[in-house]
Amino acid sequence: MTTTVRTRVAIVGAGPAGLLLSHLLAKAGIESVVIDQRTREEIETTIRAGILEQGTVAILDSIGPASRARTVGHRHDGIELRFDGEGHRIDFAALVDRGVWLYPQHEVLKDLIAARLADGQDLRFGVTAERVEDADTARPRIVAVDAEGAPLVIDAEFVVGADGSRSVVRGAVTGSSTGGYFREYPFAWFGVLCEAPPSAPELIYSNSANGFALISQRSATVQRMYFQCDPDVDPNSFTEAQLWEELQARVPGVDLQEGPIFQRDVLRFRSFVAFELRKGRAALVGDAAHTVPPTGAKGMNLAVADVVVLERALRALLLDGDERLIDAYAETALRRIWKAQHFSWWMTSMLHVAPGASDFDRLRQLGELSTVVESEAGRTYLAEAYTGWPLA
Amino acid sequence: MTTTVRTRVAIVGAGPAGLLLSHLLAKAGIESVVIDQRTREEIETTIRAGILEQGTVAILDSIGPASRARTVGHRHDGIELRFDGEGHRIDFAALVDRGVWLYPQHEVLKDLIAARLADGQDLRFGVTAERVEDADTARPRIVAVDAEGAPLVIDAEFVVGADGSRSVVRGAVTGSSTGGYFREYPFAWFGVLCEAPPSAPELIYSNSANGFALISQRSATVQRMYFQCDPDVDPNSFTEAQLWEELQARVPGVDLQEGPIFQRDVLRFRSFVAFELRKGRAALVGDAAHTVPPTGAKGMNLAVADVVVLERALRALLLDGDERLIDAYAETALRRIWKAQHFSWWMTSMLHVAPGASDFDRLRQLGELSTVVESEAGRTYLAEAYTGWPLA
Repeated sequence: MTTTVRTRVAIVGAGPAGLLLSHLLAKAGIESVVIDQRTREEIETTIRAGILEQGTVAILDSIGPASRARTVGHRHDGIELRFDGEGHRIDFAALVDRGVWLYPQHEVLKDLIAARLADGQDLRFGVTAERVEDADTARPRIVAVDAEGAPLVIDAEFVVGADGSRSVVRGAVTGSSTGGYFREYPFAWFGVLCEAPPSAPELIYSNSANGFALISQRSATVQRMYFQCDPDVDPNSFTEAQLWEELQARVPGVDLQEGPIFQRDVLRFRSFVAFELRKGRAALVGDAAHTVPPTGAKGMNLAVADVVVLERALRALLLDGDERLIDAYAETALRRIWKAQHFSWWMTSMLHVAPGASDFDRLRQLGELSTVVESEAGRTYLAEAYTGWPLA
Repeated sequence: MTTTVRTRVAIVGAGPAGLLLSHLLAKAGIESVVIDQRTREEIETTIRAGILEQGTVAILDSIGPASRARTVGHRHDGIELRFDGEGHRIDFAALVDRGVWLYPQHEVLKDLIAARLADGQDLRFGVTAERVEDADTARPRIVAVDAEGAPLVIDAEFVVGADGSRSVVRGAVTGSSTGGYFREYPFAWFGVLCEAPPSAPELIYSNSANGFALISQRSATVQRMYFQCDPDVDPNSFTEAQLWEELQARVPGVDLQEGPIFQRDVLRFRSFVAFELRKGRAALVGDAAHTVPPTGAKGMNLAVADVVVLERALRALLLDGDERLIDAYAETALRRIWKAQHFSWWMTSMLHVAPGASDFDRLRQLGELSTVVESEAGRTYLAEAYTGWPLA
């Protein structure tokens, strides 16, 4: 027997974008239902990176003390760009009077889930969306299967796909499940989590002849590090000693603090932007709309920026019957998305060594890094993008 | 019968680099001989582009009123970056308190030749250098053939290759006539000179879906314009009407002032940096040392920057017997060369449409252009490079 639920906004995906959207809508008095095919535990324990732009942290402040970004996360006032064996600090605080917060995405999710449930949000785990129907009418609906395998229909006034890179809602918006602008990269990141003290107080983005490495932090006793690798590498083909050797070879001049490695994974790189972000009464936000390579730390922040634009448009549409902002949603969101795509591509290209790169390419890259770090304008240009352009 | 000339510095090439070097050395009391295989008329009538950095103009001031850069040339306080049908001014004066001068290279050469001859410079046209001998001793020499076909030897204490991209001196420095870091581009510029009033007060660098165009000026009645083309195109395969159509299609929104086209040429793009810039008592400057694509207007300016570094090193070596600066010449010059290579590559990549570029690439490029023009730091970063980093 099919259960039918009525709500104003049906949101597929309980990631940062979907949960934040339901929160902002609730603040505006607009009811929503959020479904996700994963269990709460899966969502809260899948370890993800997390650099929060200052604007993202400010938006999360609106959920109140449930946001632990400022209390548990760490504010970073800069990063180190490292090349040719030397480190160069990009001093965000001095250059743009902004910072970023190191606070993992799964912690953001724990905060948002707790806050939404405390607020009485209709948040359903283990519910798999199958398709969107009637997106071109005023009463679109999501056809789903609940945690017990029973059919569930959510009748709404608007449907939002916040359901990640394998989005089901995307098909209703773009006309196909994959349609978008696409770029692949000939390398990946080998990520490790280790028990060790921090090797540096801030993130180190290192360009070396052996490839890129990112030295990141998690806590006083756990660190996250990445090194450029072949996308087809088997994560288990390295001993721990070999992993430390690979990492150390990419940060000459830095003395890495080693310790037991308890997680390892390979992150493939791709850039993607869906051909359409909205069709009728359905729209996409976050990874459903776009994917960026991780070098610029833009993934979650871009999702938050989409939500800010969409939430304002939904308020105008659902409270005032004003369609202008929703009609402009895609164009408004895409302005930032393509800037972020460029920034992510730029950081990636400037810092990695592409397989088959010529000596000319390599030396030009070092010329670029020198130009950036020697110029206050260059450092500022990078800092503006990294800490996040102002939210619309 | 072989004529032997003795001098302190033997300079091959009467281009901007060679002539300026002989001038600066003369001011320091160091005698030199300059030879060039071309006639004076050939040198003075080969039409070349010319955007002079502020620092280049200041160096040319040192030849006195013979430099007409400030009187005949035109100071430009900005350029227009054009994309998506809209123009965005990069205001050099406001951003970096600097400007550039539009003054063609062959006019610079007329000024330098007149000044050098008035000063009694030993400047020999029609003399072809064949090779450099004994570059690893304190008495290197150039073996040449003079305008009458008679052998000529120039015995010197230092030999300088300012002899362009087909440098003969390069072989003595790098060990081969071609050895260097190299990059080719899959497009070229179709350049035209026309009789018409200016279409714009400043240079327009235009990115369009049809490719790049540069709208430049020469005088009140003659204009220089370029459009991106296939490197293998036959310059005579276009009618004048077709050329205007090609140009206009690359600057949507600009109303080009048309007129008779009296010169047309295809400029191929390449980036090159010689593996070595100095060996023993021989060094390379200008195009003998490097080639840049023309998009950043860096060619002649980089030659001048090389000369400034080399002249100081030769003064220390020949007046004080101090070898430290000449030992550091290559490293010092290369720092700026690789920054300029990057800038030239960057302007080229950001503004041209590469054959086979994907829609993702194209939209990312527009995202980059938006990021640059919307940010004062981005505009400043570009303006610093375009107007020229401070000379060492």
